[in-house]
Amino acid sequence: MRAYKELETRYRRLSLIDEAQAMLGWDWATVMPEGSAASRVEQLAELSVISHEYLSDPRLESLLEEAETNVARLNAWQAANLSKMRRLWLHNAALPVKLVSEIRKATSSCELAWRVARSENNFLDVLPHFETVVALVREKSQAKAVTLALDPYDALLDEYEPGGRTIHIDPLFDDLSSFLSRFTDSVLEYQRTTQPPPTIKGQFAASKQRELGKSLMKAIGFPFTHGRLDESHHPFSGGTPEDLRITTRYDEKDFTSALMAVLHETGHALYDHGLPERWRRQPVGGPLGMSIHESQSLLIEMQVCRSPEFIRSILPLIHKIFGNESRGLTAENLLRCYHFVKRDLIRVDADEVTYPSHVNLRYILEKMLISGELPPRDVPEAWRTGMRDIVGVELDSDDDSNGCLQDIHWYGGDFGYFPTYTLGALGAAQFFEAAKHQVPDLLASIERCDFKPLYDWLQTNIHSLGCSIQAPELVIRATGVELNTGPFKRHLTSRYLGS
Amino acid sequence: MRAYKELETRYRRLSLIDEAQAMLGWDWATVMPEGSAASRVEQLAELSVISHEYLSDPRLESLLEEAETNVARLNAWQAANLSKMRRLWLHNAALPVKLVSEIRKATSSCELAWRVARSENNFLDVLPHFETVVALVREKSQAKAVTLALDPYDALLDEYEPGGRTIHIDPLFDDLSSFLSRFTDSVLEYQRTTQPPPTIKGQFAASKQRELGKSLMKAIGFPFTHGRLDESHHPFSGGTPEDLRITTRYDEKDFTSALMAVLHETGHALYDHGLPERWRRQPVGGPLGMSIHESQSLLIEMQVCRSPEFIRSILPLIHKIFGNESRGLTAENLLRCYHFVKRDLIRVDADEVTYPSHVNLRYILEKMLISGELPPRDVPEAWRTGMRDIVGVELDSDDDSNGCLQDIHWYGGDFGYFPTYTLGALGAAQFFEAAKHQVPDLLASIERCDFKPLYDWLQTNIHSLGCSIQAPELVIRATGVELNTGPFKRHLTSRYLGS
Repeated sequence: MRAYKELETRYRRLSLIDEAQAMLGWDWATVMPEGSAASRVEQLAELSVISHEYLSDPRLESLLEEAETNVARLNAWQAANLSKMRRLWLHNAALPVKLVSEIRKATSSCELAWRVARSENNFLDVLPHFETVVALVREKSQAKAVTLALDPYDALLDEYEPGGRTIHIDPLFDDLSSFLSRFTDSVLEYQRTTQPPPTIKGQFAASKQRELGKSLMKAIGFPFTHGRLDESHHPFSGGTPEDLRITTRYDEKDFTSALMAVLHETGHALYDHGLPERWRRQPVGGPLGMSIHESQSLLIEMQVCRSPEFIRSILPLIHKIFGNESRGLTAENLLRCYHFVKRDLIRVDADEVTYPSHVNLRYILEKMLISGELPPRDVPEAWRTGMRDIVGVELDSDDDSNGCLQDIHWYGGDFGYFPTYTLGALGAAQFFEAAKHQVPDLLASIERCDFKPLYDWLQTNIHSLGCSIQAPELVIRATGVELNTGPFKRHLTSRYLGS
Repeated sequence: MRAYKELETRYRRLSLIDEAQAMLGWDWATVMPEGSAASRVEQLAELSVISHEYLSDPRLESLLEEAETNVARLNAWQAANLSKMRRLWLHNAALPVKLVSEIRKATSSCELAWRVARSENNFLDVLPHFETVVALVREKSQAKAVTLALDPYDALLDEYEPGGRTIHIDPLFDDLSSFLSRFTDSVLEYQRTTQPPPTIKGQFAASKQRELGKSLMKAIGFPFTHGRLDESHHPFSGGTPEDLRITTRYDEKDFTSALMAVLHETGHALYDHGLPERWRRQPVGGPLGMSIHESQSLLIEMQVCRSPEFIRSILPLIHKIFGNESRGLTAENLLRCYHFVKRDLIRVDADEVTYPSHVNLRYILEKMLISGELPPRDVPEAWRTGMRDIVGVELDSDDDSNGCLQDIHWYGGDFGYFPTYTLGALGAAQFFEAAKHQVPDLLASIERCDFKPLYDWLQTNIHSLGCSIQAPELVIRATGVELNTGPFKRHLTSRYLGS
């Protein structure tokens, strides 16, 4: 037990350093003066190096071995905690310090070059940086593959999605892909027979949008004693479980997008805050992985807040806050905005029907980039082909800004993240379907803007478990079956074809 | 050189951890949700422990010894840097980890108890906590006294004011004290013959006060690319040299206090930003000590911004921003507000004439608390006596809220800080007098709201030196003589007796 207790103390420190980094990251994105960026980079990098060194301490390894020898004396949560400690150690030990530092530098300069290349639609400008990043990430994937005994791509995926494997993802994505290709056609055909969504255009002051967002966050259960809503270029959920910092951005001509962004990030924040308090700052007390995290934001945004029940319930508040500007807006036409489907070029603007195709395109290409099958220089063409075949949209031959330059992920070195978006969408549908079965009158309570029954279900079945069990097991325990595409397909069919 | 270079790397890390703490501290005071306090305390405490451990690494000590053996190979800045490194090491090595942690806990709970005790005017409630804090700080002072070969009180003073010693401060304070006692009588008598200051009462929206403050900060040279102005309960200057975070608080009925607070903190921030860039994150690149720091804020606030030249120059802007609300306000009656002298109970509200007496009272009592001559329980009575004899004000026998409970310093474990306020006031007067002698038409440029000549002088003579030389030497180099009470007395005489 002594070794295990000592490990708890050590991993607590690592978690506190993470928390400091999270707060500095929030500051960066929301309030930091632009001239301070270089100095912030150095602060964050040094904290990373401190963590890395601390995790590389040989004493830590011997403590892990000692505790593992005596694992029988630990209870289930402690044993799970110990296995998460080992996992973090393995991911860290796999990489030489030099490689970590090279990746940090390469991704920093590649991100900067990407910003320019995207705004100037010039892929060749970022290509040399991108080639370096891909080479280094491949080196990383191979080093992790050896240490973790995984395929290189799975070794990357495992950082974001512990236990996630392409062998499980591929069949889900293939199944979904063939369903969506026909389904989207049907939706578009059906849509042609209905009224188009109204154009929302008015004067929606940021301060009023903020008031609306905060009212709804409060109704859903966001604890403002332990969190804030601010503004940043891109919405995110940051901070720590005890200090939730979510952000959005406001378009003062149209409130609909910021509103859903706030609700999406609220879903993330509720998950973080609901993680087991008893295990705060221990590995087992952290989130299960990015797909479960995304399932929580998409459950709140897509399943709940884009539902007719929710939209009907908030309409009076929208009218109260925006007054004349929202006159004429009915639940019906607001829902038409929120349920409009269009095959288009940009992932972050995509609706929930076409979104998985965008993810699938990236998933397929990034696997090929990591295996070496696709050289970075061929990405623009592969993107164009994939856009046509998978998403069903033609991308101009000279347009990369709206093609392979649209997302920051790869240029920042993040490979293996994309699939978690779709896994999250599947999870959201499956969890919500199960909750509706298990909780009587769940939709009726949502229509009364009473989120307690839903919150309690999420808390019991998902949040409070931390990562004491694996994601596949959690899904089975909460919903009775393993993660599958059925609930998501049923959800889409019911919402978009009304059957 | 290898040892010295390795030391630079190590002290850079310590500085980056300090920077992270500074940003977390800013966040705490400005934007943090109240429920997150406990978790923030743990983040800050862990970063302190990491620094302490890192500074206690035996390898660091041997590097210091090795570098000191080869000090002849270092240039003057490097040698000064090495000596500052040793100083930080000594202050850290003097204290056992256990004592550091006991002090942290005792001061945390004493601060909480003090808040209640002050609001309820009940000294006895905080007394047990206060006794513990004083006992622990005395233990600390004695441990540092041994390591640093200083008197115990000087060992505490040395933390805030490197090289500061009571033997130099006592004569300055005694001289000033006897001057001020008669001088204040003369000022009050003179004031009776003049018009009283106007009562400023209007609707001064915080947003307009912020606009005024930011305009003036900009004029003085505050770099908004590397800094911000925000709100907090108490004004402060925080952040880092590359990311200056100053704060104020607004009284919407009277703009005069927030305005001077902003200008005061701007003085602090300009010093931090002007520290030698080449030596960022090295001990020698830091500020010289709290008295020089305070001299920079008081130079801007008291010497420059409360001068007739400055007040005349900003009056048009005040009228432009506040419109009707400031109608009738002339430079003359604004100056009467800013130059009004009154013997009163509260230090932070005191004018610059009576302020040094408040400091002297605290300086005398804290020396006695550390020597053991004054038991904590006798502080209220000693305060009352000192208030009468030194400040010249009677404090009600049942009032401790406006007596010894008014300042947080002691209850938070800060002993040895108070004298730096008055040393700063002396320095501000002496520096500004020298600058006026050396820079032609300095006052005329200030009246044109052109701060470049002053800024350049401060930059050359003070900011850019970091702590490459000691404070007494810096004062002599910049002004030709050692720190003395002459310039401050001349300043007061000229401003308050018009002669």
